Amino acid sequence: MRGWIIPIGGKLMSPAIIERFIALAGGDQARIAIIPTASSEPDMGAYYERIFQRQGVRAAKAFNFERRSDCDDQDWLQWLGDATGVFLTGGSQLKLSSILGGTPVARLLRELNANGVPIAGTSAGAAYMSEHMIAWGDEGSTPRVGMVHMCAGLGLSNRIIVDQHFRQRDRLGRLLTALAYNPFCLGLGVDEDTAAFIGPDDTVDIMGTGAVTIVDPTHVEYCSVAHAVPGEPIEVVGMRITVLSAGSTYNLHTHVAVPAAACAV
Amino acid sequence: MRGWIIPIGGKLMSPAIIERFIALAGGDQARIAIIPTASSEPDMGAYYERIFQRQGVRAAKAFNFERRSDCDDQDWLQWLGDATGVFLTGGSQLKLSSILGGTPVARLLRELNANGVPIAGTSAGAAYMSEHMIAWGDEGSTPRVGMVHMCAGLGLSNRIIVDQHFRQRDRLGRLLTALAYNPFCLGLGVDEDTAAFIGPDDTVDIMGTGAVTIVDPTHVEYCSVAHAVPGEPIEVVGMRITVLSAGSTYNLHTHVAVPAAACAV
Repeated sequence: MRGWIIPIGGKLMSPAIIERFIALAGGDQARIAIIPTASSEPDMGAYYERIFQRQGVRAAKAFNFERRSDCDDQDWLQWLGDATGVFLTGGSQLKLSSILGGTPVARLLRELNANGVPIAGTSAGAAYMSEHMIAWGDEGSTPRVGMVHMCAGLGLSNRIIVDQHFRQRDRLGRLLTALAYNPFCLGLGVDEDTAAFIGPDDTVDIMGTGAVTIVDPTHVEYCSVAHAVPGEPIEVVGMRITVLSAGSTYNLHTHVAVPAAACAV
Repeated sequence: MRGWIIPIGGKLMSPAIIERFIALAGGDQARIAIIPTASSEPDMGAYYERIFQRQGVRAAKAFNFERRSDCDDQDWLQWLGDATGVFLTGGSQLKLSSILGGTPVARLLRELNANGVPIAGTSAGAAYMSEHMIAWGDEGSTPRVGMVHMCAGLGLSNRIIVDQHFRQRDRLGRLLTALAYNPFCLGLGVDEDTAAFIGPDDTVDIMGTGAVTIVDPTHVEYCSVAHAVPGEPIEVVGMRITVLSAGSTYNLHTHVAVPAAACAV
């Protein structure tokens, strides 16, 4: 059974998110591999090693794949292959895709997740997880042709496109644009200090202090993207937006949302 | 076994390409569904109906899905579901992705191809076939950050990114850019009046009067995309370029090219 996929919107402060990830990875038996490749700060790996070690996992080790040739390191690949959980730090998602893409590391991450290992990523690490990755884009809530730049991501799921720092950086427009180009995927806009825990059954549940905005193009009747000029607003009819916070759930297949208050009733 | 995937680079003149596609679709028993959605010319469907009918297929019928609601037409879906070959015309690939994306038509096309039905597409139809689609971009052979706009395509394969009118519109730079973002896929740059016949075993053979440029990032050692500023050239070390013309073959898994002259020996 596929492992959990856990995009986190950046600025992770809530200990409960880390604790839940560790529990899914085996609790005190967890072996957490940290990949700080996205970051340009040299102590990012050590920072997360300490965070996980403080929680009493069996092992937590950072592997800073800085060059594509690092991705052939057999000792690192062996440790990674035995990991029971993987954590991708923030930074630049294009560092992740351009350094890990097409290497044994990216292949191993897909295999691990396909075999049940949970993979969490914050900020750039969250953006990188899906098949279609938002590389960069403009701010603002109105979709406009060309405001989002996309490329191939890690490919844990081709059902979702993840965006992060969502409310804080005003990113609704670029996510709407990505979905207007092809109303196939679901958009997940994850706020800071917030996580979307996507279970093996593709039910998402939400933790943290912010919200997750789910953009569902299933019932889009019309969009003008093929006729609009770059920079112009895109007309879209029928995009469905759902905003959920901690304790709420959403199923990516049935599109059924269960708000937290309804869960509690 | 998966069906053939046949991107054609536009300006299709060689009858041999159409004849080969028809042979793969069942010859005189072929039922060819034509999808002229990419085009804005109202008689594009009828034009291709005549071309296929003249070759003596059993049936050739155009389905112009112009609105997303057309993609729920049960009569059209039934005919499409019984097709033994599908042909996507040229026009705008964003019309294909934004009108068919996430609808029963896109799902059915993936199912047909997964079950052995060949799907050919010319120009925009070729660009749309892969999981990662080039929506538009700039001309020129030097890769530059931001010169290519990508989005989700039909998804018949996530191993390739197809570009078309390749030599005629000077598109090497934008294909290099797409692969520099994530050196995972292989790039196939297909010239006009040229087809890449991608077999069920992922061996590509080439027909027509132009060439297919295969851009293989497997051994890329370095690319600067995460550090460069939009508009700046991207540094790439170790991209492998192979140019093949009619009669030559290339395997997408082994990366082995067999030039036509070598085949003939």
